[in-house]
Amino acid sequence: MTLSNTKPRIGFVGVGVMGKPMALNLVKADYAVTVFDINPAPVAELVQADARAARSPAEAARDADVFITMVVNDAQFLATLFEPGNAAAALPAGATVIGMSTMSRATVIETADRLHALGLHFVDAPVSGGEVGAQSGTLSIMVGASDEVFAHVEPALRTMGQRVYHVGKNAGDGQAVKMINQLLVCVHNAVAAEALVFADKLGLDVQQVFDIVTNSAGNSWILGNRGPRMLSRSFTPPKSALHILIKDLGFVMDAADALGHPLPLGSAAHQLYKMAGAMGMKNLDDSILIALQERISSSRDALI
Amino acid sequence: MTLSNTKPRIGFVGVGVMGKPMALNLVKADYAVTVFDINPAPVAELVQADARAARSPAEAARDADVFITMVVNDAQFLATLFEPGNAAAALPAGATVIGMSTMSRATVIETADRLHALGLHFVDAPVSGGEVGAQSGTLSIMVGASDEVFAHVEPALRTMGQRVYHVGKNAGDGQAVKMINQLLVCVHNAVAAEALVFADKLGLDVQQVFDIVTNSAGNSWILGNRGPRMLSRSFTPPKSALHILIKDLGFVMDAADALGHPLPLGSAAHQLYKMAGAMGMKNLDDSILIALQERISSSRDALI
Repeated sequence: MTLSNTKPRIGFVGVGVMGKPMALNLVKADYAVTVFDINPAPVAELVQADARAARSPAEAARDADVFITMVVNDAQFLATLFEPGNAAAALPAGATVIGMSTMSRATVIETADRLHALGLHFVDAPVSGGEVGAQSGTLSIMVGASDEVFAHVEPALRTMGQRVYHVGKNAGDGQAVKMINQLLVCVHNAVAAEALVFADKLGLDVQQVFDIVTNSAGNSWILGNRGPRMLSRSFTPPKSALHILIKDLGFVMDAADALGHPLPLGSAAHQLYKMAGAMGMKNLDDSILIALQERISSSRDALI
Repeated sequence: MTLSNTKPRIGFVGVGVMGKPMALNLVKADYAVTVFDINPAPVAELVQADARAARSPAEAARDADVFITMVVNDAQFLATLFEPGNAAAALPAGATVIGMSTMSRATVIETADRLHALGLHFVDAPVSGGEVGAQSGTLSIMVGASDEVFAHVEPALRTMGQRVYHVGKNAGDGQAVKMINQLLVCVHNAVAAEALVFADKLGLDVQQVFDIVTNSAGNSWILGNRGPRMLSRSFTPPKSALHILIKDLGFVMDAADALGHPLPLGSAAHQLYKMAGAMGMKNLDDSILIALQERISSSRDALI
């Protein structure tokens, strides 16, 4: 499993809201990038910018030194690598797969083992920073990889992310750090909604309360970011869809459950996210939790 | 209940960690301040700075246009005002009482009614910003009072606080805003501990995780402030004792319960704060919640 010293050729699968600008930043930094997506529109855009288009994940993998996935979920990730005509079998020996979606830690650990058995390297590298960070190349990237493999992919990662953290030597370590961040994000978002709705119930001027608490010890990054969307009821189109946090918090709870580890607030928040999902809010902005809090605390709704 | 136009004479009861520097800032701004505390040491210090000492709350009240309380809890507040030889009976007609401790909204509303019946004004004005804010005169002060009474006391409040928010016309409105802030503070503190202990359980470098999440969407003011104390295990002497947040979150839950209003995360956090209290952590720094999370998730403790 020797690693090439020349600038790696990159295969990139999943060029949606996040992946397209990430791939574009690689192209702009003079990487040879071959892209695949089930949606042809962003592929065509990237070809205009000098990327090559592949007709399958396997074709994107064939000549790649580094193969990046930025797909929606675990199932797409596994299909991209392991389904018939798949990428893993097409990759040259010694190539490196970088999984950059937020995924289940268990899936990532199992995939790393399968790829190692095929003579391939794996880098666990989920990101934080959203569409804006992807476009500006200022993502935070949390990387689990051996020192050697990390050194190999670090220049490409720095093209996409301003803060590249080498958080551990093992697959799953990147996802683990991302889980800690998402646990905080999910609880902060839910308690922001809980606090603003309680302020309204107490008869306060909620906008003024928001101004006060964001200038006080009660502030959080999420309160400052999602609070204005909650107050202006800007839920669609979603800037960050609720289903993403439902999925992410599910991964957190699964990982804790697998360890027999209690997460009292994560668990309570998880119930709220599932309520919002069950009530049909999945494709709205995740600031919609304020509407959940209103519904579960207001007598203004009809009784049935 | 006419209000004096001249610079008010001030009575000040409760010159502890918070009250002493607040009273000192009033003295420095040339207010005539008469102070009382059950502890003679800070009173003697303030006398050195040109305050007058009173031998009882009633004596501090006798000539006061404005009577400020910064005592520990509801019971001390009620005793200061209403017990035999009390301040309320000694205050001149038309004087204004300012309650600046964090107290139960119900106590504050009931006290305002009792004072009004005696021909006195009441201002509900809890603060945020801690000992540092009290010393530097940069407290946030959340004020419930009529426009006329607010205008009367605003100059004195601005001597103690940089941000003076007139949040409502009624007694209880200041405490209500403070409750919203404390709900956020308490949940953020508990989930910070939960997240850092889970990071450790996942085998991560907890200091690095702290650095990453405080630079990411998972950050909160409390995480940045209490996180370092959690990691360095700086629990004593307390910078902010746990019993204060146990009390504050109790007020939040009481107020919600009185309205039949659900607070799912506040309630889950409340259980954790009570666990920490019940386990003997009350007089330690409130960052001690990390030790609670460790104890309730670690098999390293003895089995009984």
